[in-house]
Amino acid sequence: MVRVAICGGSGYTGGELLRILSYHPEVTVTAVTSERSAGKKVSDLFPNIHKYSNLVYEKLKTGDILEKAELFFMALPHGKSQEAVDFFFRRGKKVIDLSADYRLKDVATYEEWYKVPHRFQKTLKEAVYGLPEIYRKKISKASLVANPGCYPTGAILGVYPAIKNRLIDVSKIVMDSKSGTSGAGRSSDIAYSYCEVNEGFKAYAVATHRHTPEIEQEISALAHKDIKVNFTPHLASFDRGILTTIYAPLQKRISTKKILDIYKKSYAHEPFTRVLDEGRFPNVKSVRGTNLCEIGLIVNIRTDTLIIVTAIDNLMKGASGQAVHNMNIMMGIDEKTALDTVALFP
Amino acid sequence: MVRVAICGGSGYTGGELLRILSYHPEVTVTAVTSERSAGKKVSDLFPNIHKYSNLVYEKLKTGDILEKAELFFMALPHGKSQEAVDFFFRRGKKVIDLSADYRLKDVATYEEWYKVPHRFQKTLKEAVYGLPEIYRKKISKASLVANPGCYPTGAILGVYPAIKNRLIDVSKIVMDSKSGTSGAGRSSDIAYSYCEVNEGFKAYAVATHRHTPEIEQEISALAHKDIKVNFTPHLASFDRGILTTIYAPLQKRISTKKILDIYKKSYAHEPFTRVLDEGRFPNVKSVRGTNLCEIGLIVNIRTDTLIIVTAIDNLMKGASGQAVHNMNIMMGIDEKTALDTVALFP
Amino acid sequence: MVRVAICGGSGYTGGELLRILSYHPEVTVTAVTSERSAGKKVSDLFPNIHKYSNLVYEKLKTGDILEKAELFFMALPHGKSQEAVDFFFRRGKKVIDLSADYRLKDVATYEEWYKVPHRFQKTLKEAVYGLPEIYRKKISKASLVANPGCYPTGAILGVYPAIKNRLIDVSKIVMDSKSGTSGAGRSSDIAYSYCEVNEGFKAYAVATHRHTPEIEQEISALAHKDIKVNFTPHLASFDRGILTTIYAPLQKRISTKKILDIYKKSYAHEPFTRVLDEGRFPNVKSVRGTNLCEIGLIVNIRTDTLIIVTAIDNLMKGASGQAVHNMNIMMGIDEKTALDTVALFP
Amino acid sequence: MVRVAICGGSGYTGGELLRILSYHPEVTVTAVTSERSAGKKVSDLFPNIHKYSNLVYEKLKTGDILEKAELFFMALPHGKSQEAVDFFFRRGKKVIDLSADYRLKDVATYEEWYKVPHRFQKTLKEAVYGLPEIYRKKISKASLVANPGCYPTGAILGVYPAIKNRLIDVSKIVMDSKSGTSGAGRSSDIAYSYCEVNEGFKAYAVATHRHTPEIEQEISALAHKDIKVNFTPHLASFDRGILTTIYAPLQKRISTKKILDIYKKSYAHEPFTRVLDEGRFPNVKSVRGTNLCEIGLIVNIRTDTLIIVTAIDNLMKGASGQAVHNMNIMMGIDEKTALDTVALFP
Repeated sequence: MVRVAICGGSGYTGGELLRILSYHPEVTVTAVTSERSAGKKVSDLFPNIHKYSNLVYEKLKTGDILEKAELFFMALPHGKSQEAVDFFFRRGKKVIDLSADYRLKDVATYEEWYKVPHRFQKTLKEAVYGLPEIYRKKISKASLVANPGCYPTGAILGVYPAIKNRLIDVSKIVMDSKSGTSGAGRSSDIAYSYCEVNEGFKAYAVATHRHTPEIEQEISALAHKDIKVNFTPHLASFDRGILTTIYAPLQKRISTKKILDIYKKSYAHEPFTRVLDEGRFPNVKSVRGTNLCEIGLIVNIRTDTLIIVTAIDNLMKGASGQAVHNMNIMMGIDEKTALDTVALFP
Repeated sequence: MVRVAICGGSGYTGGELLRILSYHPEVTVTAVTSERSAGKKVSDLFPNIHKYSNLVYEKLKTGDILEKAELFFMALPHGKSQEAVDFFFRRGKKVIDLSADYRLKDVATYEEWYKVPHRFQKTLKEAVYGLPEIYRKKISKASLVANPGCYPTGAILGVYPAIKNRLIDVSKIVMDSKSGTSGAGRSSDIAYSYCEVNEGFKAYAVATHRHTPEIEQEISALAHKDIKVNFTPHLASFDRGILTTIYAPLQKRISTKKILDIYKKSYAHEPFTRVLDEGRFPNVKSVRGTNLCEIGLIVNIRTDTLIIVTAIDNLMKGASGQAVHNMNIMMGIDEKTALDTVALFP
Repeated sequence: MVRVAICGGSGYTGGELLRILSYHPEVTVTAVTSERSAGKKVSDLFPNIHKYSNLVYEKLKTGDILEKAELFFMALPHGKSQEAVDFFFRRGKKVIDLSADYRLKDVATYEEWYKVPHRFQKTLKEAVYGLPEIYRKKISKASLVANPGCYPTGAILGVYPAIKNRLIDVSKIVMDSKSGTSGAGRSSDIAYSYCEVNEGFKAYAVATHRHTPEIEQEISALAHKDIKVNFTPHLASFDRGILTTIYAPLQKRISTKKILDIYKKSYAHEPFTRVLDEGRFPNVKSVRGTNLCEIGLIVNIRTDTLIIVTAIDNLMKGASGQAVHNMNIMMGIDEKTALDTVALFP
Repeated sequence: MVRVAICGGSGYTGGELLRILSYHPEVTVTAVTSERSAGKKVSDLFPNIHKYSNLVYEKLKTGDILEKAELFFMALPHGKSQEAVDFFFRRGKKVIDLSADYRLKDVATYEEWYKVPHRFQKTLKEAVYGLPEIYRKKISKASLVANPGCYPTGAILGVYPAIKNRLIDVSKIVMDSKSGTSGAGRSSDIAYSYCEVNEGFKAYAVATHRHTPEIEQEISALAHKDIKVNFTPHLASFDRGILTTIYAPLQKRISTKKILDIYKKSYAHEPFTRVLDEGRFPNVKSVRGTNLCEIGLIVNIRTDTLIIVTAIDNLMKGASGQAVHNMNIMMGIDEKTALDTVALFP
């Protein structure tokens, strides 16, 4: 039985970790922290999670919980995760960081986009980017995994086989993403109150969203050259899910069928990434509550552009599900454990 | 008092025409047709519309209603509108066609995308594309106006000033649109039933949507060259609204501020097209129930791309509101009559 | 032109007052106050309201705005309205108070349910309860109108003809209400954030809601005896609207048809209260954005119970629309001015 | 491994059975029927259900599938289920009927409310009403279980301990239910299309809903006398869930705390029925995707009325989840198998 702790367990990603882990036969959650909810029980914040309903939130004191767990999920805000991650990592613990603090390899880029200094660059060098489809082997040996952002997960998986197989002109990629409101976190901001969001739809952080450099880092690495993308997130009036529509000019004419074959081969052994048959495109509703990334694509022969659409659940494959997937890989547990769910429909 | 008839008045666009016209002091609706609802009263289908609640639907017999009206709104399905439009037009009536039948100037293009022959090409030549921001003068003299499609309205208004001022590379435009479900019409298709749509989001008709050639026709005319665009519609779980996010590479570097100035000048005298201040982007909720098209934009200086976001209400500016706007122009009525509404919020 | 001021103009009811009054040809809003938004423009909070977009919020200083208006709409929180209402009233101004402060005639009841003392009992005696269907004549002569609560409006109008005509046993009335989330105000409380409310439905304040004594006061007055009711509010995942389902045992057997006749006669001259035909029941969607109260009813002959269903828009007939209706009556303006709207559908 | 067949597997309850059973380690689905979808694969209708994605729908020919299964789930429309149920039952199969055909013990009542004759009254006598909390022992020995209706499940569980303990006056019970739209089935009726339902809320079948006699049958049996109830269903704009608010006059004064103790004791050993602590009331969102019935209650001391609120997922505890629960009991399988899920939140 693996003992795990969750640092920052009162938000939606923390709650989702508790929910997933309550299904996990080889894991027990021994501690959960929250600054503002310390002293409350898990059931006060998440009445749905019965298995851990009596677990009590405590303030994060790294020394106090060090011995309570072998593996730490860090679901703290960006900037606040750095130090605690470093603390546990240097004391030999396994750490999965759901914040952005250890995702960007280039410190200057991190500091430019997140407006805080990175004070643990030595530890940063040890972090593995936790996208199993690309880095599975490294993850299996890693002690520190930087869990990908929600938008980057769907965006990168959408273009990975196309870039690896040099199908597209990587200099002109457009990524247009639509996210459910849980992506904004469990927030008291009026902008995310029901009546402001409901029946609305808008773009936000246009040309300036912090997930942009993360996407660029990973696809630049795949392409072996420096890539900039146009990435626009949108806020949509549903709870969960991210749909990303990607436009990339083809390097040379090739049929939809051939590209689908390449994609299906690329992801043939992946438990959570599914390439849909020709003519089918994903819906966020079909992956809700699952760790799946579903991918549909078509060649627009009128413009010689590859159009790819991916769907994930932002709290699952886009956050906590992927984190548990990474844990399973790190601990040598069957990858699908606790994650082999069927989406509710409707 | 202008007497108008609505052919095809049982769907959402027909109902919206009735709703708008019930506010219009200079118009009276004298007839409304519906094949499947003939014999029913307007109040049976639209209990909200009190002014015309006792008006009774009749089957469309063009000869029978010819003398009932001076102006005909045609809200029939594509392909079914052709003949009736021609009938009224050739008998000297004013006609505003909300179907696609008279929008595409090139008959071959129409037949390729709509899979039906066009049998009234002489009349087609007389049709004016009813986008007042571009064709106001022609509309004011026209007897036949082809009311624009919902997606093309927001898409064309989004790029019009940029193309006219040669700011962008027109060969690489991406248009990513998100529409509320009323765009699918008042439909009994299970795909549009509540539980299939709610909490979902998906792309559809990817690379194949029929509004593509309409957008291309209009922006090709503006650019004086043949343009193909990548246009992807998405189905969103709200009632009304279309948000279109447009990506176009800049011809040369220019600031967001300068482009905003150009846009504001372009639309300075337009009653229904509003360019938002720098840093602001529209939300479909803010234009719901209005005839407004709101536009926000930014230059992505990392990619030298102009990103434009437009929002309309698909049933208003995207259909019936624009049709009434065209009627006002055609009849010499103040343009804002019956259309000067404030969006409900929330 | 009547000059009006809105005290507390940054919430949903304040915004709704601004929206309605922007349609009003005989009124001009000269001042609007907000403690937390002082210095901001109306357009910063309500980008939809173009007519008053440049009006600037100021802090409420009663002396400073006294001369700016002849009539004051008070949309302040309960308890905070008392003093300002008294101030304007005693200086000869007309006041419409949308808070609960002047609704309850019995001071002890007010203090028990609202947990604050009432310090202006002399002024309280002058207040008229602003339900035009019952108190129109008094309202027309009043200087201080206590605008009814949202739940009481739909509840009282639902039983008014039945009680007046002694059809029901008033000692056993059940009122089960379902409200859209805008009823909670423009709130930063996490409980009203999008993801908490969406796809949810719950009862709240069961047996303890503050609108209970207000309903009881009014129906006790109608029945000439002391009545207690079972009233349960529910929070529903839509923006606007309250549906109230009322159960009342019949005094003696009578047909649905006869009761409908009585109801239709009762409300025959009311511009905003509509009794639906037999077999029809209202939907909150059909009254959204209107000042209507729609009423459907049936006798359950198996239990000899009258079941009445009413629907209103909580921000319109349930708050700001009714306030403007009261203003029209107080100022001798045609009652339907600025309120004669048709619900958006869909 | 128990072999089961699903007759009527293309609707929401059929899909939900497939979804639940895909988690069940001791069951395999060997056949699934659908008249309109015969020849299609499960994945064509339910892309979410991967385990049975290649199972092909066949038309229901009772003789052909008789030997394919030991247990038959019947999810056919009311009236159409009768004959097939009788066929399988008389040939020694176990049958769980999700239709209403074998719920009402009194044939005249069935025929009055469902407007069809009951032609299998001998078999009807053998049917056990499948509410485990009341009939567990009978279910464990039954060959034919009539699975309860969605509304009756939440309604009966809400009053069961109160009636059994003679706390309430059973002659004056009001049950006000609010259901998500999946309760209407996978329907092509325009009335259930997205734009008609969204942002709406209404009562329907007021005083005439077919679940009324089912509720009355069961609570009459508990009370040992003939009871009529006021039951009103409402259609709400969410996918899943039923909230039922129940009002019942107390026989004599008793505290909320004491009643809660009685309820908690009543359901102490139930795996799926949870009584909430004082001051808490359920939300349909908290039980979505689970087989739980959550119950909150309070005594309104001002009216001496017990107010009870119950929440279930109409497709789970209200249909397919309860059916699998019944199967587990009938087959001697641990009751929680395949049903021990945690609600998604948000």
